[in-house]
Amino acid sequence: MREKPFVTDKGVIPPKSSWLGIKVMSVNLVLDDPSKPVVWRGPLIGKAIMQFWEDINWEDTECLVVDLPPGTADAVLTVMQLIDLDGVVMVSTPQGLSSLIVEKMMHMAKMLEVPLIGIVENMGYAVCPHCGERWDLYGPSHIDQLKEKWEVPILVGLPVDREISILGDSGRLEHYTNDAVLKKLADGVLSTLNKTVA
Amino acid sequence: MREKPFVTDKGVIPPKSSWLGIKVMSVNLVLDDPSKPVVWRGPLIGKAIMQFWEDINWEDTECLVVDLPPGTADAVLTVMQLIDLDGVVMVSTPQGLSSLIVEKMMHMAKMLEVPLIGIVENMGYAVCPHCGERWDLYGPSHIDQLKEKWEVPILVGLPVDREISILGDSGRLEHYTNDAVLKKLADGVLSTLNKTVA
Repeated sequence: MREKPFVTDKGVIPPKSSWLGIKVMSVNLVLDDPSKPVVWRGPLIGKAIMQFWEDINWEDTECLVVDLPPGTADAVLTVMQLIDLDGVVMVSTPQGLSSLIVEKMMHMAKMLEVPLIGIVENMGYAVCPHCGERWDLYGPSHIDQLKEKWEVPILVGLPVDREISILGDSGRLEHYTNDAVLKKLADGVLSTLNKTVA
Repeated sequence: MREKPFVTDKGVIPPKSSWLGIKVMSVNLVLDDPSKPVVWRGPLIGKAIMQFWEDINWEDTECLVVDLPPGTADAVLTVMQLIDLDGVVMVSTPQGLSSLIVEKMMHMAKMLEVPLIGIVENMGYAVCPHCGERWDLYGPSHIDQLKEKWEVPILVGLPVDREISILGDSGRLEHYTNDAVLKKLADGVLSTLNKTVA
């Protein structure tokens, strides 16, 4: 997305995605050159997050997804502390090292009383385009240990799929064709939150 | 690694890896339970980094590698500002989105006058264990645009290799057998720094 947000008397109106009209806000959208860095220390990052939450006109938004970096530093801490979240979805990969970091975030969510909705296992497998065989390219999964220890559902297992990379890089992520996995994820999130799919 | 650092009158002695005796320091090594989070805001993260740099006895260390998260937040900013680095190696993946974030870090390195050693392209390809075919599982590479724009060398292209995940999770990363790619990376770094391989 390249379109910029604009200021009105009803707050800042965020740009919308071209196909489904999803409202999006990101620091990148207000930079003149998105390749330039935003060299901000934690307190400024927290302020930007709160501006996105308070000053953007999210009117008519049924569901707001806040995409966060891995770990337990400023951005994640600010969002969990200051925004009234319905819950968090943790995203891990099959590696034990990834589970370890996700577990830190789960501890933090618990400390801050943010409900855990479930876990997504990303990059769990790939399907070879030459022979069609499926294989676990990051080794055997450690996700079940996390599931049992924390008693949270695995919402979906996502493959490494080059279509996602290619569509993402060309700004057409909405046109991803393997929507069965996305539907499964959305259903899992909404049923945990006791809401129904619109 | 599970061994803890210990305090002496010559400073804090970091634990060493089991095979090659590489000294390692990480916040995880001083936690009683590594799955517990370190909920620190930026200023505390900066202090921990400076303690690792100043209070650890790195005596006889020929080469110190500081592994940093992606992006331009506190940890990266502190290291680039306060430690006298010989240079930085940027790690990207084939996706344009990854190149964008790496480019932000390259701008930051330039602003802070830290020399750019080169770029590593990680996860550029995989080899199917069933049919032996090589394929670009994250789509076509965008790394050449970065190379040309910044005039920095691509030091090495690393595959997705499940051996790395498995060895990493079992604490035996030093026993990785595909050492040709690592040698190529080390040679590239050292030749850029005009040093010779020990």
